[in-house]
Amino acid sequence: MRALVKEAAARGFTLKDVPEPTIRDDEVLIRVRRAGVCGTDVHIYQWDDWAKGRCRPPFVVGHEFAGDVVRVGSLVTDVRVGDRVTAEGHIVDGRCLLCRTGNAHACTHTKVIGVDRDGCFAEYIAMPATNVWHLDDDISYDIGGIHDPMGNAFHTALTADIPGATVLVTGCGPIGIFAVGICRAAGASHIIASDVNETRLALARQMGAHEAVHPSEVANAVRRATDGLGMDVVLEMSGVPTAIHQAFALVRPAGRVQMLGVPAKPMEFDFATELVFKGITVYGVTGRRMYDTWHQMTRFLRSKEFDPTPVITHRFPLECAEEAIRAIESGEAGKVIFEIA
Amino acid sequence: MRALVKEAAARGFTLKDVPEPTIRDDEVLIRVRRAGVCGTDVHIYQWDDWAKGRCRPPFVVGHEFAGDVVRVGSLVTDVRVGDRVTAEGHIVDGRCLLCRTGNAHACTHTKVIGVDRDGCFAEYIAMPATNVWHLDDDISYDIGGIHDPMGNAFHTALTADIPGATVLVTGCGPIGIFAVGICRAAGASHIIASDVNETRLALARQMGAHEAVHPSEVANAVRRATDGLGMDVVLEMSGVPTAIHQAFALVRPAGRVQMLGVPAKPMEFDFATELVFKGITVYGVTGRRMYDTWHQMTRFLRSKEFDPTPVITHRFPLECAEEAIRAIESGEAGKVIFEIA
Amino acid sequence: MRALVKEAAARGFTLKDVPEPTIRDDEVLIRVRRAGVCGTDVHIYQWDDWAKGRCRPPFVVGHEFAGDVVRVGSLVTDVRVGDRVTAEGHIVDGRCLLCRTGNAHACTHTKVIGVDRDGCFAEYIAMPATNVWHLDDDISYDIGGIHDPMGNAFHTALTADIPGATVLVTGCGPIGIFAVGICRAAGASHIIASDVNETRLALARQMGAHEAVHPSEVANAVRRATDGLGMDVVLEMSGVPTAIHQAFALVRPAGRVQMLGVPAKPMEFDFATELVFKGITVYGVTGRRMYDTWHQMTRFLRSKEFDPTPVITHRFPLECAEEAIRAIESGEAGKVIFEIA
Amino acid sequence: MRALVKEAAARGFTLKDVPEPTIRDDEVLIRVRRAGVCGTDVHIYQWDDWAKGRCRPPFVVGHEFAGDVVRVGSLVTDVRVGDRVTAEGHIVDGRCLLCRTGNAHACTHTKVIGVDRDGCFAEYIAMPATNVWHLDDDISYDIGGIHDPMGNAFHTALTADIPGATVLVTGCGPIGIFAVGICRAAGASHIIASDVNETRLALARQMGAHEAVHPSEVANAVRRATDGLGMDVVLEMSGVPTAIHQAFALVRPAGRVQMLGVPAKPMEFDFATELVFKGITVYGVTGRRMYDTWHQMTRFLRSKEFDPTPVITHRFPLECAEEAIRAIESGEAGKVIFEIA
Repeated sequence: MRALVKEAAARGFTLKDVPEPTIRDDEVLIRVRRAGVCGTDVHIYQWDDWAKGRCRPPFVVGHEFAGDVVRVGSLVTDVRVGDRVTAEGHIVDGRCLLCRTGNAHACTHTKVIGVDRDGCFAEYIAMPATNVWHLDDDISYDIGGIHDPMGNAFHTALTADIPGATVLVTGCGPIGIFAVGICRAAGASHIIASDVNETRLALARQMGAHEAVHPSEVANAVRRATDGLGMDVVLEMSGVPTAIHQAFALVRPAGRVQMLGVPAKPMEFDFATELVFKGITVYGVTGRRMYDTWHQMTRFLRSKEFDPTPVITHRFPLECAEEAIRAIESGEAGKVIFEIA
Repeated sequence: MRALVKEAAARGFTLKDVPEPTIRDDEVLIRVRRAGVCGTDVHIYQWDDWAKGRCRPPFVVGHEFAGDVVRVGSLVTDVRVGDRVTAEGHIVDGRCLLCRTGNAHACTHTKVIGVDRDGCFAEYIAMPATNVWHLDDDISYDIGGIHDPMGNAFHTALTADIPGATVLVTGCGPIGIFAVGICRAAGASHIIASDVNETRLALARQMGAHEAVHPSEVANAVRRATDGLGMDVVLEMSGVPTAIHQAFALVRPAGRVQMLGVPAKPMEFDFATELVFKGITVYGVTGRRMYDTWHQMTRFLRSKEFDPTPVITHRFPLECAEEAIRAIESGEAGKVIFEIA
Repeated sequence: MRALVKEAAARGFTLKDVPEPTIRDDEVLIRVRRAGVCGTDVHIYQWDDWAKGRCRPPFVVGHEFAGDVVRVGSLVTDVRVGDRVTAEGHIVDGRCLLCRTGNAHACTHTKVIGVDRDGCFAEYIAMPATNVWHLDDDISYDIGGIHDPMGNAFHTALTADIPGATVLVTGCGPIGIFAVGICRAAGASHIIASDVNETRLALARQMGAHEAVHPSEVANAVRRATDGLGMDVVLEMSGVPTAIHQAFALVRPAGRVQMLGVPAKPMEFDFATELVFKGITVYGVTGRRMYDTWHQMTRFLRSKEFDPTPVITHRFPLECAEEAIRAIESGEAGKVIFEIA
Repeated sequence: MRALVKEAAARGFTLKDVPEPTIRDDEVLIRVRRAGVCGTDVHIYQWDDWAKGRCRPPFVVGHEFAGDVVRVGSLVTDVRVGDRVTAEGHIVDGRCLLCRTGNAHACTHTKVIGVDRDGCFAEYIAMPATNVWHLDDDISYDIGGIHDPMGNAFHTALTADIPGATVLVTGCGPIGIFAVGICRAAGASHIIASDVNETRLALARQMGAHEAVHPSEVANAVRRATDGLGMDVVLEMSGVPTAIHQAFALVRPAGRVQMLGVPAKPMEFDFATELVFKGITVYGVTGRRMYDTWHQMTRFLRSKEFDPTPVITHRFPLECAEEAIRAIESGEAGKVIFEIA
């Protein structure tokens, strides 16, 4: 089959023929229809320090996808050939303290598809049946293919108390824009989104932000919206140090900062004034809660109150991997997906 | 001033002239513009067993209102003459364990206006400044006058986890209908409302119920909507024993039942199968959380995602108290209000 | 092997030879050393209405046990021959919404060992590897054999906020007495236990109750301990209607009632005054949280702050099943266990 | 009366005669018996950057105390002359969103006694009646005089889930040592405390730490105690950058870090690896929850499961203020108190 492969410890991906995956008795084989391209894929493409420390080429890249089940292992009882599915890409041990107390998303033995084992930028992928998630009939493969990053947004937004809250979203990449739409659907009373890119701000407005502003305007916007008190909840989606400082400056005392964005390296932080004296709670978001977040996604999509479609701005075949990476690097894109089959 | 007075231990109210209230140094005097009529007022009018056990005539009736501040006591610093306000009608001691640990709504020393002391079916009412709640400029006296029952609905709905939830609302009196609108604004994925009265079901649909059905249809509706599992959250707003049994039958295992409705007398209940074996949580709703619920109301009204206006179906002058009571007794009304000034 | 079998739809158990269980690839075979006898076993022995409605003889009885692993299926990776273990007796589907959102204890497809499939009053039992729980080296088989009911007590106690709380435990059967010890170890400030039986009250005192009194004294004890306000938390462990009414009468407003005990049939309950107007939260306890509760048990046992040993008052061989049942029926026993190997 | 006064913008305190405070109608006058000396007082004494930025001399220093009420204002109803009391030193506005939604401890209009207005290192102090907290008869003035820092420890410890938890306390100053005792009383399964000072480690052991070790040993201790996973909860009580990094390194994934200690200036922090990827929750602790924390303190003291007495290591008269400051600066002291009357 054709697949995008990280072949060597160097910049780039290679589109090539590789053997179709075999499946274990508790796995299923999925024909991939759509696959989302993520910032993580860009890191792997660029072969930056994080990628060098984590990945062991060669492997098939990609961790966000939807498709059809074409084969099931002998022990699989709840997934059938022909099922339209997506999947949780974190393969966890299922037995550790974290997995058995509701924190599987933080399992220390996690293997991520497309990072630690073969991924989904390919015609087929093997997945453990436990990780498969069924799509409702009226959910397109496009939307199915972006459940992973949508799930990050749901995890970030809905582990805070959103109904009635004032919410600041710093960073309007795809996950930030999803989060805007989720917060709007969940009854946030006022949503301010910030980004340096006007295209992305326009998407944030389209998804329901009451205000979408340049970072240089955000402090004023928060002051006006909250009489100077600050926002109940801040979703930090950028990983940019100046935005992180804004997140902590603009959350109200006793408020909550949800951190999904990760800065590339350590930064100066004033624990006294930015965190302790403000009496705030900070939550580090990794992955998706397994499988609370997935149920939430299905529920929001069913209700039609949240529609992620506008966030998908670019579509490419696997042959155009470099264009896809460049679209993301430009900082102008919403969600970029591969159309595979 | 004119006031509706419960004069004696017998059925009825009397419209009569009474002295204008005096205020203490920490109180304010409010000119009443609108006042909501509540089921509690009907109990007092009818002089039923609950009223006989609780009330000591004579007193001015009424506990839901909005108006203008016309005088302030010498110790009052944050309310001014001319302010447009409503008020929390539960006057609590502010010093007990409950008041000082976030549960003032359950204070055992609560005095309720219109029940335990003079109320708001009158041209003027005296209120402690601590209980006064400011209305935004664009909130009408009509809406201000129904903050108390809206607050019951917010308390009931938002102490459950609504975003993405399937919600059943049993009973579509005004508070039930408010709750439908709140849940819709807060991102409930599917809302089923039930009532015996078609007018009220129509209001529930108007406020956002995905389905509004007769109690004889509700089990089927829940089964279809949840593949037989049951609803995540049930808001019991009727106090009718058959509806209470439905609430417990139709909540899913490990779900949550929020009980605001109160049956008139003890009823048979099977703790084993209706509560314990289902592993559910049940929450008794009394009053409004002070003042978390009030902030939530202001936030939802500001966002325009929730508009209670359609729930107000009847308006009367104080002279027509009997018509107002009859409208409620008919079971056909949404919210009934007095237009006082 | 020898096993206590529910042979027919009639009173009694039969000790007889049955085939040793076979195991599936994902199961393990355990040699049973100790097994606890539970009220549920008494219901099955007596063949009461609940048992008639639920059980399908013949089957091996018993669901609480500890022993040694003697065989493991081919797919089992984390349990080894020779491991000292106990097990969660609720075998759940692992795939439903409840299982995948932290509520596996409420899974509607649960099969309980000794109730819905063969149990542990036998020399050997087959268990899914996922349900096996390892015992620390210094935990005896006796203590291992009562993890199931201890787990009910942990689930009941630790889903309330115990540090600093005033706690009433109504009913001092084994689970109630365990709960007393757990609450004491978890920093409850004042624990009152009630029961009609003086032997059990003595056990409750030994496990840490500050007061252990007859139900006729409990209202006075609560009044003295709380200046009349009521207890922060009530753990209802009896299922006796009068105790249930006391639970709701003696919890403070906005407090919490945890219900494990189940009355044999429906009872009169005044939702208005016993639940809604008090603003309380009620939680129905079923099984053990999987596997949060099990981790808590291991932690408490490791810390030595909680020692359930005194609760075990009777030991019998399998041959003395009738004596074991009679000991429980007497209402005088703490925990009754079988010594099997 | 005699009082320790911060007279000028320079190092030191001055013991001098000042006028006895007058009280407003809603205040009480308290004769001070004991007063605790805090790190904050040392900052003010040293006149460091924080003090220069915050304080406006002259004012009476000190914010932790206990004593007897000797006069009450005309509006005070629940405090009487002769009452033995301590007090919450944060005087808040009581009306803002934070005060009215359970977060008064984070009120942005807080005035702290001994920092923003006259404090308690004096024979008398005026306090708003709302801030006064009654002492049980058997609680000494010594213990009453350290409720403020004990409250910091209770706030830090009990906003985490302690029963059964593994807990690391980094920093064994008085508040850290209190926290050790609180966690032990609340059922922590394993408590590791760290500090550079052996005297303080000995106090931590005396208060219940299972292990009390030098920071160079703490990573090994955590590894042994948790099989390498990390601690469920870390209470960061030191404000020392290396300890803060240890706190984040040694908390387990999806665990919780409670931060009370404040570093003197910004420090490098790697949000990616220290917070976000670990999926942890961080809570900034300021003051005491008003008045949940105070009720908890009274409850723990009543139960006798927590006794802070050993933490008090030094006692001085007001005349020996410099010795008191030096004792704290040495890093060898537990709690230092003034004996005033």
